[in-house]
Amino acid sequence: MPPENTILRLKNVEGHLKGVIRMVEEDAYCIDVIRQIQAVEAALNRVSAQILENHLNSCVITAVKGDNPSERERVLKEITEVFDMANKV
Amino acid sequence: MPPENTILRLKNVEGHLKGVIRMVEEDAYCIDVIRQIQAVEAALNRVSAQILENHLNSCVITAVKGDNPSERERVLKEITEVFDMANKV
Amino acid sequence: MPPENTILRLKNVEGHLKGVIRMVEEDAYCIDVIRQIQAVEAALNRVSAQILENHLNSCVITAVKGDNPSERERVLKEITEVFDMANKV
Amino acid sequence: MPPENTILRLKNVEGHLKGVIRMVEEDAYCIDVIRQIQAVEAALNRVSAQILENHLNSCVITAVKGDNPSERERVLKEITEVFDMANKV
Repeated sequence: MPPENTILRLKNVEGHLKGVIRMVEEDAYCIDVIRQIQAVEAALNRVSAQILENHLNSCVITAVKGDNPSERERVLKEITEVFDMANKV
Repeated sequence: MPPENTILRLKNVEGHLKGVIRMVEEDAYCIDVIRQIQAVEAALNRVSAQILENHLNSCVITAVKGDNPSERERVLKEITEVFDMANKV
Repeated sequence: MPPENTILRLKNVEGHLKGVIRMVEEDAYCIDVIRQIQAVEAALNRVSAQILENHLNSCVITAVKGDNPSERERVLKEITEVFDMANKV
Repeated sequence: MPPENTILRLKNVEGHLKGVIRMVEEDAYCIDVIRQIQAVEAALNRVSAQILENHLNSCVITAVKGDNPSERERVLKEITEVFDMANKV
């Protein structure tokens, strides 16, 4: 819920990404650049997982307990969609 | 819930995987084998997403609506865990 | 090159996958099934990496050292393609 | 090799990531944030693939054609390593 932690983590990822851009500008070794890009992606995965956890413990609980079946359906469908996409990126 | 469809899809994946083994036995071109293995993985991702969708619409709804907070917490934590792992495989 | 090891590993994955099908038939808990499917995928990734390693140390060396520029280009392009797909499955 | 294009693409990704941070600051819907993070990761995958392609067509060709077997081995091993990691992030 309080997204300060998420913002902080994303800003750290931004700093990491700026470092990758600097590496390319300074003509760093290609494989080292790829490894750093992969590290950035791993960090983004961790942020996504944290956001999903917050979402499950707030919106999803509210929607599932709520009186609106189509809202509940929508919220649960979204979980499957981001899971499906997580398998693809 | 009715897992017949899941079983059928997994058996199709098994048939696909047997085909990959046959390719290797017949000394197929490495890159073609890798591409087929990747196709098997894409099929497995689709099965996982389907299983998760069923799970969300059954156990998760039951647990979230239920009276047991620790059961609810456990069920929601599992979703984050498989999402996190989906990012890694 | 000698693909015996690859065949053995793929047959182990097949055994693992049969176990997953059995789990679904016996109505195992959805999340446990998803976790086992993810373990199958992780094993397939390891086999792919091994096949790629063999390929780099045989066909790729031959093509790069060879006299056929379009063959060399094709072989190197394939590496990028399977890398790209590895990011997606 | 000419990394201008890579730099440009990474700077676009950085702009995209800044947009994601702004979304979180403005308390955007969790699932929309996750989807944008996944889009950032997809963009990073495309940049990685491009860098790998450049690398194959320069350093890898040089190393494979060169006289240093341990250098060749190292360069080919790195390809397998980033492929392996691509499967994990």
